Amino acid sequence: MRILIINPNSTKDITRTLVAALPRYEGVLLHTLDAPVPAPAAIQSAVTSIASAFYSFKAILPTLAEYDGFLVCCYSAHPLVEMLRESTTAPVVGIMQASLVTGLQLGNKVGIVTTAERWQPLLTNAVASLGFDTARVQVSTTGLGVLDLHAKPQTEVHALVAARALELVRDGCEVIALGCAGMTGLERAVTEAVGPGVPVVDGVAAGYEQLLALCRMKLQTSKALLYA
Amino acid sequence: MRILIINPNSTKDITRTLVAALPRYEGVLLHTLDAPVPAPAAIQSAVTSIASAFYSFKAILPTLAEYDGFLVCCYSAHPLVEMLRESTTAPVVGIMQASLVTGLQLGNKVGIVTTAERWQPLLTNAVASLGFDTARVQVSTTGLGVLDLHAKPQTEVHALVAARALELVRDGCEVIALGCAGMTGLERAVTEAVGPGVPVVDGVAAGYEQLLALCRMKLQTSKALLYA
Repeated sequence: MRILIINPNSTKDITRTLVAALPRYEGVLLHTLDAPVPAPAAIQSAVTSIASAFYSFKAILPTLAEYDGFLVCCYSAHPLVEMLRESTTAPVVGIMQASLVTGLQLGNKVGIVTTAERWQPLLTNAVASLGFDTARVQVSTTGLGVLDLHAKPQTEVHALVAARALELVRDGCEVIALGCAGMTGLERAVTEAVGPGVPVVDGVAAGYEQLLALCRMKLQTSKALLYA
Repeated sequence: MRILIINPNSTKDITRTLVAALPRYEGVLLHTLDAPVPAPAAIQSAVTSIASAFYSFKAILPTLAEYDGFLVCCYSAHPLVEMLRESTTAPVVGIMQASLVTGLQLGNKVGIVTTAERWQPLLTNAVASLGFDTARVQVSTTGLGVLDLHAKPQTEVHALVAARALELVRDGCEVIALGCAGMTGLERAVTEAVGPGVPVVDGVAAGYEQLLALCRMKLQTSKALLYA
């Protein structure tokens, strides 16, 4: 089983961190792709989102048939997910949808902690477009940029993410989803803040397991209507 | 990893069929439980649903600590899922929620083919209670009783299920979910009707993979609010 793990921006550090954290399973070969420059270094707006999808798609297209599944590691309703679903029968998983399907099996309401303020409306709208009841998901932002997550002092990053997570729990969220691929590795800091009774879902790990589940069931992307 | 696969009614044949069809993974031990009599032989109403949950729960309670995960094999928002989530930190998966999370990663709208007419409003309401946008799921009934699925001539059962599946696809459904644990094994008949471009999701298989995904990620049921 050959899996392509896609970082749709051109910052290579993010991909290394997230792939290193994934468990390895027998018979599963992991390949990674960073979007080539001129893809944006970070996805933080409509323009950078679409550009990242466009350059990633262009890079993947010649190798599409080589993989049995695709994981798109941007925490959003990232357009590359739809582009790939349109272009292959292999399953394509996006980390936001995967983290919500995971979280909603653990608690009634999921709180997403993410980066810049703009993601508040963007991710809130994405909840509905991904097929979920909007009342079951709440989004909170730290104000950090995507690249700040690694560039800023880690104590500061941890404190901000943990504080937002705790507020979400106080608002009735029962599960915390880390709302950025660059937040992989922050589970411990968040768990220390919210306590062991609140599961913390890393979107990349959830997306990886969701994709493997689809592959193991030999389920393919529907070609009935939207992705035909 | 010790997994308990629960058939919440007292008809043993159903459990045998569904467990036989599951793949085996290294390190995963499968145990099964049929609800003991006087649990109802089939779940097809409010009374039989609650009674099946009550008798199953009573049978599981003394052994709760022996398992790392629980799979409840009734295609509904079955109350046993909530009872178990309240009583253990281990993950608890219900096959309806699992089949919808699986299906919505393969297509925009999922069509559920189920048994008696009463399941039309019951499952439609369950879509919302399980956290999904109701516009993304459509339910169709065959009029068959749960036990009819095995008792009636298989050609008749296949024809009825396949016909409803085809209607759902014509209504815009892109993925078909088999809306009863007793429908395990009907994938081929449905695929012959709807064509290979429409994935057919067996709830039990989807539930099994979802539960293993949660266990592999070491994610537990939230104890923050609803299940505290």
